[in-house]
Amino acid sequence: MRAASSGAPDLADWTARLLSARKGLEGVAHRTPVATSRTLDERVGARVFLKCENLQRGGAFKFRGAWNAISRLPDDARRRGVIAYSSGNHAQAVALVARMRGIPATIVMPRWASRSKLEATRGYGAEVVLYGPEPQGAASGPPDPAETRAGAPTAESREALAARLARERGLTLIPPFDHPDILAGQGTAACELIEEAGPLDALLVPVGGGGLISGSAIAARHLAGECRVIGVEPEAGDDGARSFRSGRIERAENPQTIADGARTPALGEITFPIIRRWVSEMTAVPDSALIEAMRFVWERMKLVVEPTGVLGLAALTSGQVKLPGSRVGVILSGGNVDPERAAAWLGSG
Amino acid sequence: MRAASSGAPDLADWTARLLSARKGLEGVAHRTPVATSRTLDERVGARVFLKCENLQRGGAFKFRGAWNAISRLPDDARRRGVIAYSSGNHAQAVALVARMRGIPATIVMPRWASRSKLEATRGYGAEVVLYGPEPQGAASGPPDPAETRAGAPTAESREALAARLARERGLTLIPPFDHPDILAGQGTAACELIEEAGPLDALLVPVGGGGLISGSAIAARHLAGECRVIGVEPEAGDDGARSFRSGRIERAENPQTIADGARTPALGEITFPIIRRWVSEMTAVPDSALIEAMRFVWERMKLVVEPTGVLGLAALTSGQVKLPGSRVGVILSGGNVDPERAAAWLGSG
Repeated sequence: MRAASSGAPDLADWTARLLSARKGLEGVAHRTPVATSRTLDERVGARVFLKCENLQRGGAFKFRGAWNAISRLPDDARRRGVIAYSSGNHAQAVALVARMRGIPATIVMPRWASRSKLEATRGYGAEVVLYGPEPQGAASGPPDPAETRAGAPTAESREALAARLARERGLTLIPPFDHPDILAGQGTAACELIEEAGPLDALLVPVGGGGLISGSAIAARHLAGECRVIGVEPEAGDDGARSFRSGRIERAENPQTIADGARTPALGEITFPIIRRWVSEMTAVPDSALIEAMRFVWERMKLVVEPTGVLGLAALTSGQVKLPGSRVGVILSGGNVDPERAAAWLGSG
Repeated sequence: MRAASSGAPDLADWTARLLSARKGLEGVAHRTPVATSRTLDERVGARVFLKCENLQRGGAFKFRGAWNAISRLPDDARRRGVIAYSSGNHAQAVALVARMRGIPATIVMPRWASRSKLEATRGYGAEVVLYGPEPQGAASGPPDPAETRAGAPTAESREALAARLARERGLTLIPPFDHPDILAGQGTAACELIEEAGPLDALLVPVGGGGLISGSAIAARHLAGECRVIGVEPEAGDDGARSFRSGRIERAENPQTIADGARTPALGEITFPIIRRWVSEMTAVPDSALIEAMRFVWERMKLVVEPTGVLGLAALTSGQVKLPGSRVGVILSGGNVDPERAAAWLGSG
């Protein structure tokens, strides 16, 4: 896998990568449905098209990038196997793709990862390497802020552990977002959305490390030149918006938000230049808006979407982003949320 | 609306009603998706096709029957308006159809109905008439058994109230299940499922008053003669299974089950003969199997389905019904469940 060329990103080059990813995913990834809701349209005063990546294989868009990256590995690298670090959807996607391709997979996961995610990852046949402190009490979940300040798991420590295991075992690291094949794969969801919904005025996309939004921005530039691409982060982890304004990669360490897929401390070296060039705007919403949006899709559309997955929708339903009379695409990026946790968030409404 | 002819049900007559209902629902009801899951198929050893009526307008199959019945009313009856009694999906369906057709609607609902159902029904512009005791405390929900034994709401008392209001106000009562146009409308979901999934060996259908399963049985006999139609009830309300065996309508008063759509005390005078003639088997599952099935569709398919809605699926996943190597249709009949209640059921698993 060659790295992205240095300097300003080139649309023709990135479009070629996107279209190649798309071809490789045909008949493999689900072409997930695009859902609409009259109630939603009336409420926000726009025509909204929701791309249901919560119904993707593995329960999130991450399958697309993982498949695209792993499929391009040379034969000898595939024989040795792959490794990934993630507390969530990327881990499951890599484990799932590896099983489908008959490749050994090692996944580095925090001890506080939810039981269901650990079980799902092991269920795909991956070897799970745990790190970090034992969870306190019966409840699983990210450690509290005091604990993380004391030096418990951060993205860096698990990155370092995964890098060491990769070296020792000859495994290829499949990074969660900052890789050309990963972000090109993620962009295929936006391709399908734009093709199915028709011309869009705006596209709202969740932002963690920037893999999904950079791929989506390439898709929008290629297929829908006039479409504004708007990234949405949780307020507690607004490093992306700050980076977008300042022009350099800013960090948010261990942001405390229920949007666990957006707790990434910073955009990537590859994703950031693409975002700077082709994303129109970055914004952020509070966790309360995420809970409200999860409740909306539950009650009105009967869909389970995880907190990170409703970031784009929450920007609309909370009024943070107003697009009256527009045709708006929204990527519901994933649905992997434990009933136990959703209960705690939604049960008290 | 004429009543069904007396004597043994006639397939040609009922098929004509079904096909007529279907024509009237074209372009009005959603043609809901048929979902499949490799994990589910592996787990139960069959090829399973799930008809997602939780994604129907109003969140349940009830829209079909309500539209079919209300559309066939004479003009003067429509001008005067309709009335329905229900704590749940039928009420919302009648209110929704009435709004769509510009007809006044009165809905008789228990005071303990959930806030979201009351709001949804009023949101459709219906007049809501409350009956029964004030709910105790903040939590809404059906009264406890002691309260119901003391003479609080039963299907009879609300039936009587609705009948009186209908007389006094000149309204047409739209019954929840025991009416030819209602059950013919409900059967259109099974038509779509059989057409989309192809030949089925068995069809699993939730049973309350028998509207959905009698319509489904007509559809199966018409489109898929060899397909076994299996009705599934909650264990606490197994009056249908007992009636099926004894040959006369047995009752289950105020059955205590989370499957609120199946708390109906008995099958209907019109639905029962159809069930006796064209349904192959009736079975029942405990509430614990419903919670397990709700958790399965949540975690694996990202779908919100209410307890009554998973009755058919729960018969498979609990092993109550074994159909190895078969092609099995399952109707997921509705998705109207409050996050608060689902939290209490799923949150402790």
